[in-house]
Amino acid sequence: MAKQVLILGGGFAGLAAARALQGAPCTVTLVDHNNYHLFQPLLYQVATGELPAEAIATPLRPLLAPTGAHFRLDRVLAIDLAARTVRLAENATLSYDYLIVALGSVTNFFGHADLALHAFDLKGVEVAEQARSRILYAFERATSCTTSAERSAWLTFVVAGGGATGVEFATALLELIRILMRRRYPELQKTPPRVVLIQGGSALLPGFAPSLQAAAAAKIRALHGEILFDTHVTAYDGQVVQSHSGAPLPARTLVWTAGVRAHPLTATLPGADPHSGRVITDAHLRVRDHPEVFVVGDGLAPCHQHPWPQVAPFAIESGRYAATVIRAGLLQHPPPPPFIYRDQGSMVVLGRYDAVCQIDRWHIRWRGPGAWLLWIGLHLYRIMGMRNRVLTLIDWASDYGSHGNAIEIIRKR
Amino acid sequence: MAKQVLILGGGFAGLAAARALQGAPCTVTLVDHNNYHLFQPLLYQVATGELPAEAIATPLRPLLAPTGAHFRLDRVLAIDLAARTVRLAENATLSYDYLIVALGSVTNFFGHADLALHAFDLKGVEVAEQARSRILYAFERATSCTTSAERSAWLTFVVAGGGATGVEFATALLELIRILMRRRYPELQKTPPRVVLIQGGSALLPGFAPSLQAAAAAKIRALHGEILFDTHVTAYDGQVVQSHSGAPLPARTLVWTAGVRAHPLTATLPGADPHSGRVITDAHLRVRDHPEVFVVGDGLAPCHQHPWPQVAPFAIESGRYAATVIRAGLLQHPPPPPFIYRDQGSMVVLGRYDAVCQIDRWHIRWRGPGAWLLWIGLHLYRIMGMRNRVLTLIDWASDYGSHGNAIEIIRKR
Repeated sequence: MAKQVLILGGGFAGLAAARALQGAPCTVTLVDHNNYHLFQPLLYQVATGELPAEAIATPLRPLLAPTGAHFRLDRVLAIDLAARTVRLAENATLSYDYLIVALGSVTNFFGHADLALHAFDLKGVEVAEQARSRILYAFERATSCTTSAERSAWLTFVVAGGGATGVEFATALLELIRILMRRRYPELQKTPPRVVLIQGGSALLPGFAPSLQAAAAAKIRALHGEILFDTHVTAYDGQVVQSHSGAPLPARTLVWTAGVRAHPLTATLPGADPHSGRVITDAHLRVRDHPEVFVVGDGLAPCHQHPWPQVAPFAIESGRYAATVIRAGLLQHPPPPPFIYRDQGSMVVLGRYDAVCQIDRWHIRWRGPGAWLLWIGLHLYRIMGMRNRVLTLIDWASDYGSHGNAIEIIRKR
Repeated sequence: MAKQVLILGGGFAGLAAARALQGAPCTVTLVDHNNYHLFQPLLYQVATGELPAEAIATPLRPLLAPTGAHFRLDRVLAIDLAARTVRLAENATLSYDYLIVALGSVTNFFGHADLALHAFDLKGVEVAEQARSRILYAFERATSCTTSAERSAWLTFVVAGGGATGVEFATALLELIRILMRRRYPELQKTPPRVVLIQGGSALLPGFAPSLQAAAAAKIRALHGEILFDTHVTAYDGQVVQSHSGAPLPARTLVWTAGVRAHPLTATLPGADPHSGRVITDAHLRVRDHPEVFVVGDGLAPCHQHPWPQVAPFAIESGRYAATVIRAGLLQHPPPPPFIYRDQGSMVVLGRYDAVCQIDRWHIRWRGPGAWLLWIGLHLYRIMGMRNRVLTLIDWASDYGSHGNAIEIIRKR
């Protein structure tokens, strides 16, 4: 019987692993609780109505069909390392000879149950669409408020977290307000909407050069956004955002981008860091004492020699690498050299026609339309499936051409 | 102060009324609980993954902006005819001088609470997307069933109601299965999916010529669909469909298209029929004893002289007519002649490249690709907003060109 390779998760890492195993002498099964691969880096654009969810969610079954891998739609409940099995929610247990854990990360609310209940976290298609609906609904409600305090609470949008997602979302929201909402809601001219970005540290975009961090802050302020540095959100009841260093901020919408941790199942593996849930592996991405179990993508813990970033290119390369090690094992070849990752740089889009871009190994620090064009090109290239690429292109073209043809449908939960 | 015209509902009738009141000496406000106009006749294609919801849902605010009408997103709780006010869910009351009730119809489950709970009724965007997700999920679940009885229950799709919506949905679903699902799920070749259409009467498409009724039935059977005539669904627990004339039918999916009634608020008006909720008005579509209140669209009761159909062209013409009467009243002109509606014919699409079409006043009974092309042309023409028209066209083109590029995203509730 053919060896069984089981991949948990159909994100960038899991999908790359399945593709790299094409033709290997084994049976490959990929399990995900969604039936699609999500192009997570653009999810914030679903929340701001720039893209329909379908443009960034590509069904896994047709993606996997050419690789010969099987797909199983289910939620993983537990990994039994000793028995080499995985238990699924729908009363099934799958055995494996090799296991690739590519479960990605989940939002970290740092134990705040109220935040988990009332904030939008931009980690899935449904919540991104709910965030979009909330933003549009807030404007509708603001038109019929009887007090100005209530109106201003509906028109205050707080973004917690000044990393890439928080900055990209905040600038996209500010552009949406500037270009579209002002036009749609002339009756709200006297109550300008507020977008408040709350950042725990003293600069946006940790890891970027100070000049680019300053450029991002300047851009947000130029779009009339506000930034609160050195501030942590401590509580949110759906009405008022509390922080330990500022005045209470009445706001009906809070978007949470201030932290992630590894998937809870990843955090159960040997070598997992108790805080981040991310796993320290050997040089071949294998779990301690279990050379048949690999961790890839966001689940890998960084260490001194390897400051591994939680980004798509890293996920893809680590997934592909694990497949190479498994293929060598199946063919009884010697294992490949240890995994190394060469940083491919980072880009953060700042609304229309603007971005910051940093590629350390080439000493590149770019900002402005050139960086933005580069970003557009890279994203379109990476979005999988021609249909989606074409749809996205058309959507963007019509969006940028007409200055605001956003998706304005309020869905009910 | 300008006279207040209040329109309840932003469907075909309400929107046509708002447009026809453009420039009249009054303030027009349209209230809807959705912020979009829904192109209801194509909603079944959202349920079968042929169209994204955004293609048939057009935001009302930009649609209304050129007419000068105001938009209010809210749910109407009550109409006070004596006080000439309408109470909204968000603690507001609106006064009117003229009221146009364009609330459309709601699904009639004929008192079966179990059906309302477990069946999909294709009346809104959310439920259509849930139906699509259920259909896709059923195929995924079928691949991991351990018994063939369970597998066949997941792969049995029951459609209750053999009117236009039921027939269009059933044929579209059969095409989806034939073209896409067989390809996606090679492991299910041994368990062919079943689509069972349950019709209360002895023919499909009541109101159509017998030759076209027979053509619709033949088409469904040619696509391997089953039809149960003279059968009424009596109960459904989410597992087994019960009817009083057939054996219990295990099926995990039931789509209910077997009845509508007028919106509950319409049914509170004088002259409302206790069963259908539809209202008998005077010859100018005005409610008895309340010449300032109009009923338009699906809410109008048919009578001997006027077999008024619950279709978009009728809704549009009746909405426009009410606006004409109001405009005459505002200008103190004599009222226009009584409302007459000339039947514009009916078309029902039967999957790809096929339809039946009947236009009585020209004695037309068509079927086949010619009728289908006519249908495509009419629908594209009627879908409002260039963006949506273009998106829809591209979607259809890619869909029909590639034989199956459906939307295959399973959304979670």
